[in-house]
Amino acid sequence: MEEMRNIIQRYGHKRVSLAEAGATRHRSIFNGLKALAEDQPDGKLTKPEVVIIHDAVRPFVDEDILLRVVIAANEHGAAGAIRPLVSTVISPSADGCLDHSLDRAQHRASEMPQAFLFDVIYDAYQQCSDYDLEFGTECLQLALKYCHTKAKLLEGSPDLWKVTYKQDLYAAESMIKEKISQEICVVVNTKDEESVGYLLKEALRNELNCINITSTPLDLPGRDTQNFLMAQCYSFIHVNVVSSDSHETQRFLSIIEESSLPLLYPVVVVLVCFLDFTLVPLTQKMESLVWIRDLAKEVKKSNVLLSGLLINHSQDEQKLQESLQQGASIIGSLVKERSSALAGQLLVA
Amino acid sequence: MEEMRNIIQRYGHKRVSLAEAGATRHRSIFNGLKALAEDQPDGKLTKPEVVIIHDAVRPFVDEDILLRVVIAANEHGAAGAIRPLVSTVISPSADGCLDHSLDRAQHRASEMPQAFLFDVIYDAYQQCSDYDLEFGTECLQLALKYCHTKAKLLEGSPDLWKVTYKQDLYAAESMIKEKISQEICVVVNTKDEESVGYLLKEALRNELNCINITSTPLDLPGRDTQNFLMAQCYSFIHVNVVSSDSHETQRFLSIIEESSLPLLYPVVVVLVCFLDFTLVPLTQKMESLVWIRDLAKEVKKSNVLLSGLLINHSQDEQKLQESLQQGASIIGSLVKERSSALAGQLLVA
Repeated sequence: MEEMRNIIQRYGHKRVSLAEAGATRHRSIFNGLKALAEDQPDGKLTKPEVVIIHDAVRPFVDEDILLRVVIAANEHGAAGAIRPLVSTVISPSADGCLDHSLDRAQHRASEMPQAFLFDVIYDAYQQCSDYDLEFGTECLQLALKYCHTKAKLLEGSPDLWKVTYKQDLYAAESMIKEKISQEICVVVNTKDEESVGYLLKEALRNELNCINITSTPLDLPGRDTQNFLMAQCYSFIHVNVVSSDSHETQRFLSIIEESSLPLLYPVVVVLVCFLDFTLVPLTQKMESLVWIRDLAKEVKKSNVLLSGLLINHSQDEQKLQESLQQGASIIGSLVKERSSALAGQLLVA
Repeated sequence: MEEMRNIIQRYGHKRVSLAEAGATRHRSIFNGLKALAEDQPDGKLTKPEVVIIHDAVRPFVDEDILLRVVIAANEHGAAGAIRPLVSTVISPSADGCLDHSLDRAQHRASEMPQAFLFDVIYDAYQQCSDYDLEFGTECLQLALKYCHTKAKLLEGSPDLWKVTYKQDLYAAESMIKEKISQEICVVVNTKDEESVGYLLKEALRNELNCINITSTPLDLPGRDTQNFLMAQCYSFIHVNVVSSDSHETQRFLSIIEESSLPLLYPVVVVLVCFLDFTLVPLTQKMESLVWIRDLAKEVKKSNVLLSGLLINHSQDEQKLQESLQQGASIIGSLVKERSSALAGQLLVA
């Protein structure tokens, strides 16, 4: 309970109440329903008309299916998400051999979320036997058995799968990384850099499929920038052609650090400098950017991953395109993988 | 068929025969069994005593479960892997509402591999109806129905899951990356470098949980090195303190390119140089290592990902430890993520 209270506080949730878990699934859900049925001392909870039951191990639930189960529950008394079976289901005999197999087309996997008229499911739980509370796994079945409510079944998306095994954790991690790498914000600091910034944006669009790239000048008044940062973007490409000045970058990083962004996911910031490698020796530019290493070390503590990227601003059109493409591919890798080990590095395209 | 023939040839498989797929699962399996029952023109196939049936979408099958199903099939006539159900299975009524739910404890998901006495399963397929061939999903059921063979059910590992949805592809990718990052080979080129190489190995062991780190001197006769490369290791840390000579690295990369290693997975090679950052300016060392960029571009065509890593060989014991730890963490990231975008980069710890 303490751990959950800390999480609720840390992420600033205002409308979450806790009920203690029971020893089994059904006992836990029953505790939750009781909390909704009874008057709460803090007055936060009132008895709802419809209640949604969901598993925390299905973190990728979207608003659409929540809406659909609620509407169907309102009409039918109960509703739940289902999915086609991936494997055939069989029934073993006592000696561990096949007794019979089930027709896969006639069966479905019952997933979550499920929704119920509160009175239906609360009534069902109040009536149900100790055996049900101890060994049951299906709320829809309780509504059917005790309240004769036939739940409406709604096709859910594959994203509703239950994160159960090690491979599911990998999959969940990749799903989150994919989601947060869909949106990239290209920050340009002065008007005359727009041409290179524009070219880089084009290269990023080609490299990163279907990505949503927005750009903002950094010279906006503070509040607008703050608002922009609130827009759920976790990847910033800070294009900086003219200066290698750390102050502006520092100011930008402070805004991010002070926002609630890095609370949820690591925020990737790539400082991109364009320079003509034939005019300025690469190592000279690198030397002037060593401050990135120290700054990166500092902001990493706040879950912000800063890297530098030098892109060859060649006069040769083809070489420039190659560099832009390679730069976009490096940015793609940093944004997708969010490797904290690579924070502070100066990369070259 | 052409695509599969190309794959077989490309990866040098000698004991694979192809049978054409049918329109349904059971028709495809039947075609495979017919190919084993009949005399083949190339004489490669002979009728086996026991046959294993497996799904290509379950790529993480291990030898243990294959052995267990074969032994059980030999005894019982048929055997298959099963897993506990993750979600409750329900049966919908015609109007899309819940008809009844199944007791999760009494049912199992039937997975693959399955094994059969050849005569049992071939006999079953020869007898089975068009309806079975068209709509059936369970081979064990055919053996039961037509040959009265009750299959032995064996608990399989979660790794047998069916790669079905986008999240499963992510999970499969991560499983492969995890597997191939478990083994790292640290290559040292001269004896007097062993001390730093040893420290790095220790740091890697701490950073990368349970990793198997072996080391080999590069001055072995060619054949031994070749044998070593055959040992399924896809990550090489080439420790090079004294020289920044590209010839030795080139020679090493040629051995890898000529091996069959990069055929299957990208091979990560990190060239590690130790230098005291207070004695040698970092940028000077970087300049002397620019050849890495061109070489990396070259070997990337052969699926070899080369990066450079400069580690601060500080005289200060604490600083050295910090650098080694950061170096190990960078190597960990390169080895786990195998990002081709980062090939050719010079990283600093």
